[in-house]
Amino acid sequence: MKKNIRPEIPRKAIYRLSLYLRCLLRLKNNSIRTVSSEALAKAAGVKSTQLRKDLTYFGQFGTRGLGYDVDQLAHMISDLLGTNSLQPVVLIGVGNLGLALLSYKGFAAEGFEIVGAFDIDPKRRRDKTIATPLYDMSQLESVIQARMVKMAILTVPAAAAQEVANRLVAVGITGILNFSPIVLTVPEDVIVNSVNLAIELENLSYFVQH
Amino acid sequence: MKKNIRPEIPRKAIYRLSLYLRCLLRLKNNSIRTVSSEALAKAAGVKSTQLRKDLTYFGQFGTRGLGYDVDQLAHMISDLLGTNSLQPVVLIGVGNLGLALLSYKGFAAEGFEIVGAFDIDPKRRRDKTIATPLYDMSQLESVIQARMVKMAILTVPAAAAQEVANRLVAVGITGILNFSPIVLTVPEDVIVNSVNLAIELENLSYFVQH
Repeated sequence: MKKNIRPEIPRKAIYRLSLYLRCLLRLKNNSIRTVSSEALAKAAGVKSTQLRKDLTYFGQFGTRGLGYDVDQLAHMISDLLGTNSLQPVVLIGVGNLGLALLSYKGFAAEGFEIVGAFDIDPKRRRDKTIATPLYDMSQLESVIQARMVKMAILTVPAAAAQEVANRLVAVGITGILNFSPIVLTVPEDVIVNSVNLAIELENLSYFVQH
Repeated sequence: MKKNIRPEIPRKAIYRLSLYLRCLLRLKNNSIRTVSSEALAKAAGVKSTQLRKDLTYFGQFGTRGLGYDVDQLAHMISDLLGTNSLQPVVLIGVGNLGLALLSYKGFAAEGFEIVGAFDIDPKRRRDKTIATPLYDMSQLESVIQARMVKMAILTVPAAAAQEVANRLVAVGITGILNFSPIVLTVPEDVIVNSVNLAIELENLSYFVQH
């Protein structure tokens, strides 16, 4: 396999680039066309030395004394993150959380399209209408292959999560946003980002009381 | 101010305790009454040395060779996290994500009750019915004080987040689950846990493509 020439960017730096991008888009909405590294760093809550270091991944960039071109920098980050074009995502597990996420319009706004949702019982009555096509789990592999999906949102119960993750990995998914409260075992070239809303609240709960 | 005698537990350890609790509750549901530290560690995806270290916060515990009593350990962790009794939480910002979270039943299942949701325009038409009482922002302070709320879920747009956070802190909120894509500035005794779903997907997006 040929190595990419661009140095690999650490995961934390990618998170910060996402933050910079959001700040830049806000500036753009306010018709601000250039921004200093100090101002952008402050908006993102990082040190300006950190910001400048993160932006060196794009090579030499920005004009001393003039700051960064907001539009150009936003575009470069967006390109790197791969969110300039709409990316297909599947969601597996249409329970309460899955339903909530399907009704969240923020993903589309950020360049992600949930092309299909999967459930062991797609005909189950739900108190909400879903615009996303709803499939039976048996169709998981065929839909992922047909739509060339690389990313999946996993909202199945803990007991089913590893088994579903195995199927996802086997059919070529390389990024999983995991909402199940278990630690998934996946091959090294698959990235799992875990989010557990109840655990975040529990964590706060401890600190609020102690 | 009197110092708590119990040593302060690091935030990462609190996250792991939450994970252990979930594993224990699954075992309990399957009528399993004792568990070895190795089995529990494996289920939680940590090393058993880590698990044993985390459980020393509870003092000497467990019987060598017999493992942990599932029910007792679950209860002790739950006590520590403060989730044995229902805890009141407020949610601020009833946009798409706020609505999605209000319809998520997982919080209640974990011991959190959203006692009120706040919006600058509570009369705005929404395509969904909300069971949670919906208030105008002007009632924020009075509801929080009346219900003795300590935790808030923040789902307002980025531009409003810091201002709302200031009001929350001023009225006594000490834990904020922040979904706004900005870094909040709060006093040292206030804990902010940030979750940004779109950023998590963007982060995956980068790694999926590189």
